[in-house]
Amino acid sequence: MFGIWGHENASELTYIALHSLQHRGQNGAGIVASNEDYLFGARGMGLLNDAISKEQLESLKPFKNAIGHVRYATKTSSELANVQPILLKSYSGDLGICHNGNLTNAIQLRKALESEGSIFQTTTDVEVMAHLLKRSKARTNKDRIKSALRQIKGAFVFLLLQENSLTIAMDNHGVRPLMLGRIDDAWCVASETCAFTAIGAEYVRDIEPGEFITITDDGIDFDKYSYVEHPNLCSMEYIYFSRADSEFRHQSTYRIRKALGEALAKEFKHDADLVIGVPDSSLAAAKGFSTESGIPQEAGLLKNRYVGRTFITPGQEARERAVRMKLSPVRDIVEGKRVIVIDDSIVRGTTSKFIVRSLKKAGATEVHMGVSSPPLKDPCYYGIDVSTHAEIIASQKSVEEICEEIGADSLTYLSVDGMHDVYKQFGSRGECDACFTGNYPIEIVDDLLPQEKEQKSKGV
Amino acid sequence: MFGIWGHENASELTYIALHSLQHRGQNGAGIVASNEDYLFGARGMGLLNDAISKEQLESLKPFKNAIGHVRYATKTSSELANVQPILLKSYSGDLGICHNGNLTNAIQLRKALESEGSIFQTTTDVEVMAHLLKRSKARTNKDRIKSALRQIKGAFVFLLLQENSLTIAMDNHGVRPLMLGRIDDAWCVASETCAFTAIGAEYVRDIEPGEFITITDDGIDFDKYSYVEHPNLCSMEYIYFSRADSEFRHQSTYRIRKALGEALAKEFKHDADLVIGVPDSSLAAAKGFSTESGIPQEAGLLKNRYVGRTFITPGQEARERAVRMKLSPVRDIVEGKRVIVIDDSIVRGTTSKFIVRSLKKAGATEVHMGVSSPPLKDPCYYGIDVSTHAEIIASQKSVEEICEEIGADSLTYLSVDGMHDVYKQFGSRGECDACFTGNYPIEIVDDLLPQEKEQKSKGV
Amino acid sequence: MFGIWGHENASELTYIALHSLQHRGQNGAGIVASNEDYLFGARGMGLLNDAISKEQLESLKPFKNAIGHVRYATKTSSELANVQPILLKSYSGDLGICHNGNLTNAIQLRKALESEGSIFQTTTDVEVMAHLLKRSKARTNKDRIKSALRQIKGAFVFLLLQENSLTIAMDNHGVRPLMLGRIDDAWCVASETCAFTAIGAEYVRDIEPGEFITITDDGIDFDKYSYVEHPNLCSMEYIYFSRADSEFRHQSTYRIRKALGEALAKEFKHDADLVIGVPDSSLAAAKGFSTESGIPQEAGLLKNRYVGRTFITPGQEARERAVRMKLSPVRDIVEGKRVIVIDDSIVRGTTSKFIVRSLKKAGATEVHMGVSSPPLKDPCYYGIDVSTHAEIIASQKSVEEICEEIGADSLTYLSVDGMHDVYKQFGSRGECDACFTGNYPIEIVDDLLPQEKEQKSKGV
Amino acid sequence: MFGIWGHENASELTYIALHSLQHRGQNGAGIVASNEDYLFGARGMGLLNDAISKEQLESLKPFKNAIGHVRYATKTSSELANVQPILLKSYSGDLGICHNGNLTNAIQLRKALESEGSIFQTTTDVEVMAHLLKRSKARTNKDRIKSALRQIKGAFVFLLLQENSLTIAMDNHGVRPLMLGRIDDAWCVASETCAFTAIGAEYVRDIEPGEFITITDDGIDFDKYSYVEHPNLCSMEYIYFSRADSEFRHQSTYRIRKALGEALAKEFKHDADLVIGVPDSSLAAAKGFSTESGIPQEAGLLKNRYVGRTFITPGQEARERAVRMKLSPVRDIVEGKRVIVIDDSIVRGTTSKFIVRSLKKAGATEVHMGVSSPPLKDPCYYGIDVSTHAEIIASQKSVEEICEEIGADSLTYLSVDGMHDVYKQFGSRGECDACFTGNYPIEIVDDLLPQEKEQKSKGV
Repeated sequence: MFGIWGHENASELTYIALHSLQHRGQNGAGIVASNEDYLFGARGMGLLNDAISKEQLESLKPFKNAIGHVRYATKTSSELANVQPILLKSYSGDLGICHNGNLTNAIQLRKALESEGSIFQTTTDVEVMAHLLKRSKARTNKDRIKSALRQIKGAFVFLLLQENSLTIAMDNHGVRPLMLGRIDDAWCVASETCAFTAIGAEYVRDIEPGEFITITDDGIDFDKYSYVEHPNLCSMEYIYFSRADSEFRHQSTYRIRKALGEALAKEFKHDADLVIGVPDSSLAAAKGFSTESGIPQEAGLLKNRYVGRTFITPGQEARERAVRMKLSPVRDIVEGKRVIVIDDSIVRGTTSKFIVRSLKKAGATEVHMGVSSPPLKDPCYYGIDVSTHAEIIASQKSVEEICEEIGADSLTYLSVDGMHDVYKQFGSRGECDACFTGNYPIEIVDDLLPQEKEQKSKGV
Repeated sequence: MFGIWGHENASELTYIALHSLQHRGQNGAGIVASNEDYLFGARGMGLLNDAISKEQLESLKPFKNAIGHVRYATKTSSELANVQPILLKSYSGDLGICHNGNLTNAIQLRKALESEGSIFQTTTDVEVMAHLLKRSKARTNKDRIKSALRQIKGAFVFLLLQENSLTIAMDNHGVRPLMLGRIDDAWCVASETCAFTAIGAEYVRDIEPGEFITITDDGIDFDKYSYVEHPNLCSMEYIYFSRADSEFRHQSTYRIRKALGEALAKEFKHDADLVIGVPDSSLAAAKGFSTESGIPQEAGLLKNRYVGRTFITPGQEARERAVRMKLSPVRDIVEGKRVIVIDDSIVRGTTSKFIVRSLKKAGATEVHMGVSSPPLKDPCYYGIDVSTHAEIIASQKSVEEICEEIGADSLTYLSVDGMHDVYKQFGSRGECDACFTGNYPIEIVDDLLPQEKEQKSKGV
Repeated sequence: MFGIWGHENASELTYIALHSLQHRGQNGAGIVASNEDYLFGARGMGLLNDAISKEQLESLKPFKNAIGHVRYATKTSSELANVQPILLKSYSGDLGICHNGNLTNAIQLRKALESEGSIFQTTTDVEVMAHLLKRSKARTNKDRIKSALRQIKGAFVFLLLQENSLTIAMDNHGVRPLMLGRIDDAWCVASETCAFTAIGAEYVRDIEPGEFITITDDGIDFDKYSYVEHPNLCSMEYIYFSRADSEFRHQSTYRIRKALGEALAKEFKHDADLVIGVPDSSLAAAKGFSTESGIPQEAGLLKNRYVGRTFITPGQEARERAVRMKLSPVRDIVEGKRVIVIDDSIVRGTTSKFIVRSLKKAGATEVHMGVSSPPLKDPCYYGIDVSTHAEIIASQKSVEEICEEIGADSLTYLSVDGMHDVYKQFGSRGECDACFTGNYPIEIVDDLLPQEKEQKSKGV
Repeated sequence: MFGIWGHENASELTYIALHSLQHRGQNGAGIVASNEDYLFGARGMGLLNDAISKEQLESLKPFKNAIGHVRYATKTSSELANVQPILLKSYSGDLGICHNGNLTNAIQLRKALESEGSIFQTTTDVEVMAHLLKRSKARTNKDRIKSALRQIKGAFVFLLLQENSLTIAMDNHGVRPLMLGRIDDAWCVASETCAFTAIGAEYVRDIEPGEFITITDDGIDFDKYSYVEHPNLCSMEYIYFSRADSEFRHQSTYRIRKALGEALAKEFKHDADLVIGVPDSSLAAAKGFSTESGIPQEAGLLKNRYVGRTFITPGQEARERAVRMKLSPVRDIVEGKRVIVIDDSIVRGTTSKFIVRSLKKAGATEVHMGVSSPPLKDPCYYGIDVSTHAEIIASQKSVEEICEEIGADSLTYLSVDGMHDVYKQFGSRGECDACFTGNYPIEIVDDLLPQEKEQKSKGV
């Protein structure tokens, strides 16, 4: 998610920024741009380059303000109508709107709105927000937005583009990240600082829980819509989701991940010949583990640059071939060695199983698995699609059972306390650990996962 | 437009029916189908075969009720969102809705609805209708629909598909046609009877101005939502728009067109060697002219079966080549002959100009042009996109000036009275002749053409 | 097929000409253009507009000479490699080559050439011709081409484009037509004169059997490669294949077809109320029948403008629906009438069957079928894909049996003599009637139909 | 390149193997499969998944023998006709053929063949080989192939698939690698051993210069077509081209690259805080450099997983943005540090320039560049498209000038001797170093680079 106000290359910068944020969503992408008169948008399915054509990008060029979004894939909702930002046209003014996160009372609100005659055409949270905004009787635009925000629950960061302003709002837990930047004389916001690097903007600061920021041609206005702060930044942003060169509080995720690896090494002492990180996301943690433990790190697993759709006959052997096409052990590195493999997390366990088996086949005498985060047990209601309980191996099995399932000689997870200690050391004011502990910091009214909510909204 | 209730091949029959109605719209097509639980839809841009894929058609198969629409091209609105039927999902029940015609107070209604918090996502009349319906506080579904209908002005026929019923409504002027049919034990409706021929249904009768029909699993209910009837069927349906094998009051458009040609022959007496109809739409009128005048009809102009996009350099000569690719004179038929060409109407005059020139080049000694309808002078606010005054040659020039412009030796139009006499002879109870006379039978509140309305709604 | 030499819009004119010849082939299209240095080409599958893109057409613009081809569909060979013209690059000069017709000793020649080390990459006759040409040891280019031509048997017209010349050759039976035209100062050739009309060229004369024409920057050279003439123009070109406005010996196919209808009326006297032609190709014959018999012609059958792929469930009823979508009877024209339907030919009989049934269903009291050509009995080895004996109804059944099969009240074909008399009356010097009589005028060495030859060449 | 004989999943295994070899060519891909009766093929442009559809792969399933190829991109020849394997159909037997490398007398041979009447339809070396084979008068198939091989010069490995055999031939310098493998009871060959890992085959041994191997249903026959061996394996295969997990003589490229980094560290002693490898290809060399020098390695540069086409306005600033989208420095790793960057090679210098600038912008106090291979000066005539002299920076500038151009504080290349020492240590019998030294081991008759040859063959 990215937004910029008052730059002559607004849509091109948004496009570049979205490109650098592509890892946050590959299911669709959109840009809405504006000038003082009206809003104009382009969006489509798939990766950025497929979703927005050169011609569409050209047509957005004259506009000086823009917001953009890459859509995270959920199984049930691959429809163009749900790709953000959503653009609403009306005689009283146009509205472009996008968000990250998940509202936990969206169904409740939607039912109430429909009973008053509102018509919904998507299953997205942004449309709920738009209706609340349009229905508000508050006098000013700012008050109408605040009034809408006060009715919603859940984890969210919203960008609202109008003819005369760009409004930015973050829930008072600050689950999903948003960063403030500056390029030339323009203000911009992005989900991660890697977007600032990509466009050459300066990274100013992290936006705080409950903040309410308005940018107009007159400048930026920092306000709050809620003064009760419960900082709960998503742990998975640190562990897996954010790009390694992205920064939180001016410190790179790479260093945080390395520190998680170091913390794991302190908890998990074991003699071995080699430390191997699962590429690409776990290389930093493996580096930290190696530094702390003194066991040398080697590139014993390589990732094929060319992955994607393949047309292979289904079946057990075939599925094994498929994963073999993505990760390869380097035989003469691991042969005859006792190996510690570091991964950042285990969801279903299928990849871990393959890794252990292939390293052993390549000659490793022992394969110990270290995970630089605690066991992932509970689904996320705040915007990350880690599926249902049934699919998460650690919600079904003990650590010993998982170890047996994946065939490793030992399996060690980082402790929850160890994880929080690392974040504290990097100046974090509090993190959501619901997926590890089941302690959900924000009330879940609808009692539905994001994907279930979409199914329900569609009436399927 | 087509609708059917309670047939096991509902969507396939709808698809075939839409195929036979393709001449009514080539810009997009859609089908919404239902069972007792929910509604499901498919739609796309372009011709039917491009708009709806084989897979989509398959997925609609289990449903027993369906409505479908082919979208008429207007320049400003080639957007998927505007392709009908529109499908609305809500906790209180789904709604599929499509219409033909044009509401003349849509902007006024839309502004009022928006000021009360409604959000519009298309620029179509059907969305206005949907909002009125959802906002209505009437007790029964039927009353909510009637209440919505009573607020709208203009020319329309609506199909509304819900889980338990298909509702059909026609404005009390009956500008746009709708026919009632029966296949096996199911009732169906179609814009033209050619759809009944295509699916093998029986043509029952023409739906009347102000009718309000509800079809459920319990049967059909004939009702009225308005008892004030002003029959004003669109003259252009007879003259040009409907397919020649379609019938009105059980009489074919072919015969009506032939009678218009006969009427023209009575008004326009001229000695000549040959009568030539402009293929395909004016062959019937030419036949009538030939029969009445005794001058033999010959196929002096042929139409190329393969027309479509061509990549030709622009420029005067090139444009002439383009039209030359569509119509060809048969030299040895027209050489040395005095020719009367019959066309059903003249809009811009460019095709007429080419026809006269090419016949003369092929050796015709005289070319007289006869038009089997009165001079087309005024734009249509009731759903036919004949563009603005500026583009219509007869609103700018006298008959003599047009004759000179197209290079004909003479030019004769059918008189307005002559036209009405023909319709009367076929049992018509009254026709709209606004595009010939400027007498608009239905109030035009917004004072906008359909395409201007769409532009305005989009805020462009 | 079209060729032009020395015109600054050579490729655009070729494109327009091919567009007008689209009815001769819808399976693929190509253009090869040249200047004094080298040849350049573009080709693709499907209709002209799909086969050649705007960008490709642009890239061909600088060239002053061009040949083009539209490919006739045969089931077995829908491969890009077989789309003509074929473009061969070599250090001794480039060659673009296309033809119409079918060589009857191609397999024999190909086997001989392969045994000497030639490599074939397509299954087309043009590649055989190219190898003969490249292998010839004759001194001049002209002699090499003539020597190649003298080795081939069958029905053909060849266009050979080289850096310095365009060569045109026709077999000495003249089975497939080719016409000579002139535009501005350039010479051109086309399969039909409708191409000249489309580009605005003057139609000069029909090319004669055995002619060998060379066009260079120095002008045109009329020569012969064979002095033994057996004029045998394909009867089906007159009856069905050519466009109605195309001319032979400066007389339109339309008039020839009308005369065939007149001839049929002389042989088939029957009292009836109406004559109906099957649109579009049989309207001329029906006109002739009506004129001669005095029975009025009416448009009792209409053709849907929008036909094409449709996704309909297979099955008997469904297939009937499919044909119903293409042709519709006009009920109130045929109701209560005795009808004579005129068709130009009957191949499988399925369409005839539908026509008879649908006219009767629409109320016709009698339906008599008249065919303006003799019974089609034998396959064509000279380039028209009328399939195998098994598929041709008249090779399996007597006229009485066919009549019963299609359900007509009577069925009358034109006699072979009657057909030849008509052609004579239009100055024809002799026609191939093999498909009616089994008398094949040119030796068939390989004993294979065009499509069988392709299968054999592919080694399938 | 991959080939397999006698396995029931031959084409699926070929598809998986080609997927693992995708880094060797992204411009096109093809598979030709065979049974005892005939050959059948599928090919297309682009990456494997775009080039070969699921349907095509299905149609290849019944075949037990197959060869496949991924095509290396050269600018001048992106034509489907040039995608390998080429499949030739003939009455005397079908032939599928593909190769890696480049013939250096292809033009000479092609001219000679054309003067004898051969027709070429591609600009590939494989077609030259095919013609030599078909023209050979030798008695046996084996002798015909050997006779053809003895006429060609250059670097090559050929796979020839026929109804009854798969023939494998390598030039007697062994420039391009080919490996022998075994899966179940079938023999297979691949350009790299990573293909064996992907399909689960056993890696048997490296094929030797001059080998000529025939596989039939009767087993494998090891033969030689030339007994003069000059082992000259391409240095760039070790340095850059092969995948890091691929092995030569049972030792991984990863370890060879690491050793090149160690060798560089021995020659280039410099005090620094960090060693950074350019991802992904130079991480192994950086690891070796770090190990040898004792300077810690950190992931100071990250590669964006999502790269590809982007629609950005051209211009200096824009181009810079484009490269910024691919590589990002990790600020808090490099800030305030003296950095040694290890890259495996420098071609144009543009990426190096960006890397130095971006690391300095991110706070590095010194940036020293180490290259783990000698200066790349001369183009490759043996099959790697490193373009012309003009584009290679080291053929235009001294090391000092390059250092200045890219803005580094120092620049050090590995010496040629240092490089050869590493290879010797891994048991190599001799390498081609022509691109570093200009000493071309194989005669270059045509004096043309691969891409120039293609242009010439096309007559452009």
